[in-house]
Amino acid sequence: MKKTVLIFLIEQYADWEASYVAAELQAPHSEYQVKTVTLDGQPVTSIGGFKILPDHSLREAKSIDFHMLIMPGGNTWRQPETVPVRELVAHCFTQDIPVAAICDATVFLGRHGFLEDVKHTSNTLENLKEGAPNYQNEDNYNHVQSIWDGKVITANGTAPLEFAREILKLLKVREDEKIDRWFRFFKEGMVDNLTTN
Amino acid sequence: MKKTVLIFLIEQYADWEASYVAAELQAPHSEYQVKTVTLDGQPVTSIGGFKILPDHSLREAKSIDFHMLIMPGGNTWRQPETVPVRELVAHCFTQDIPVAAICDATVFLGRHGFLEDVKHTSNTLENLKEGAPNYQNEDNYNHVQSIWDGKVITANGTAPLEFAREILKLLKVREDEKIDRWFRFFKEGMVDNLTTN
Repeated sequence: MKKTVLIFLIEQYADWEASYVAAELQAPHSEYQVKTVTLDGQPVTSIGGFKILPDHSLREAKSIDFHMLIMPGGNTWRQPETVPVRELVAHCFTQDIPVAAICDATVFLGRHGFLEDVKHTSNTLENLKEGAPNYQNEDNYNHVQSIWDGKVITANGTAPLEFAREILKLLKVREDEKIDRWFRFFKEGMVDNLTTN
Repeated sequence: MKKTVLIFLIEQYADWEASYVAAELQAPHSEYQVKTVTLDGQPVTSIGGFKILPDHSLREAKSIDFHMLIMPGGNTWRQPETVPVRELVAHCFTQDIPVAAICDATVFLGRHGFLEDVKHTSNTLENLKEGAPNYQNEDNYNHVQSIWDGKVITANGTAPLEFAREILKLLKVREDEKIDRWFRFFKEGMVDNLTTN
């Protein structure tokens, strides 16, 4: 029985942000499986026009035994309808389940107080402050592609590979060197890797 | 009325390979819209576990007015069930509709004779020859991340951004410099771009 990782998909979620990590989590050598979640268990459509039939609703997700919550960005994390997702994040925080957020999902975390005790990043500090008026942990903002602190991973929206690398390491999906090699292969591109390695 | 670009999704398609381009094609400034297609119009599941409800079946696709066919890779391009997709590719070739294939979808093109008259690439030449026994255009194989020749774009599976760049340029979704800037932003990462530009 594989361990479950939940990926929360909002309406207009960003196609590229969890695409690498989802595929790696489902690889044959992985002990994890991906399950997708939407607010009401109904389909959502990505920015790129892909309509997804999810595995679970938010309500169901809270009663599932899962090992990580991944939150890709998207265009509706600042809308009132996504606010209930904070209950699932709060559940993760109290149960010590890792949470990984990228792009505007990091703003969602900031908005609801989940970035106050960890080192983190976002698209930009200015953008985070604008979207999360009560956020006060500027001292722990890092200008990096992705950062992992304790049980929280954050990344900017151009960092799907860095985000994936941190998640794969936190979950120990493979040995660290293999994850680093996988990262370089995709980051640099196959052609460069085949000619220089 | 936006112009339609079809993305053909097979069972176990690769999540990351058309994710960037789909999002860019659907951007507000684009005159295109993305429609997804599966063999029978029924849902397929990506390598990463995302179940997609497509817009069209293969049969419907042939009667639609569309401006490009994009074929992400995946694990079933060498299976008998995907062979019928060659009719849609042939339709594009006779109608002068551009075709863009990445990763194992390039092997599908080679397998069915669609790479004989164009410069192209694939994951590796060896892999292409193995998967496409009748392929004979080795002289026009290019060891690059992605290549555009006439109406055909091909790329290896680590090149979703290069693949997207060629597609966006072919379709003139924006001015070339803007597409190049978009490419660098994602390829290098936001942090490097904000600090060096």
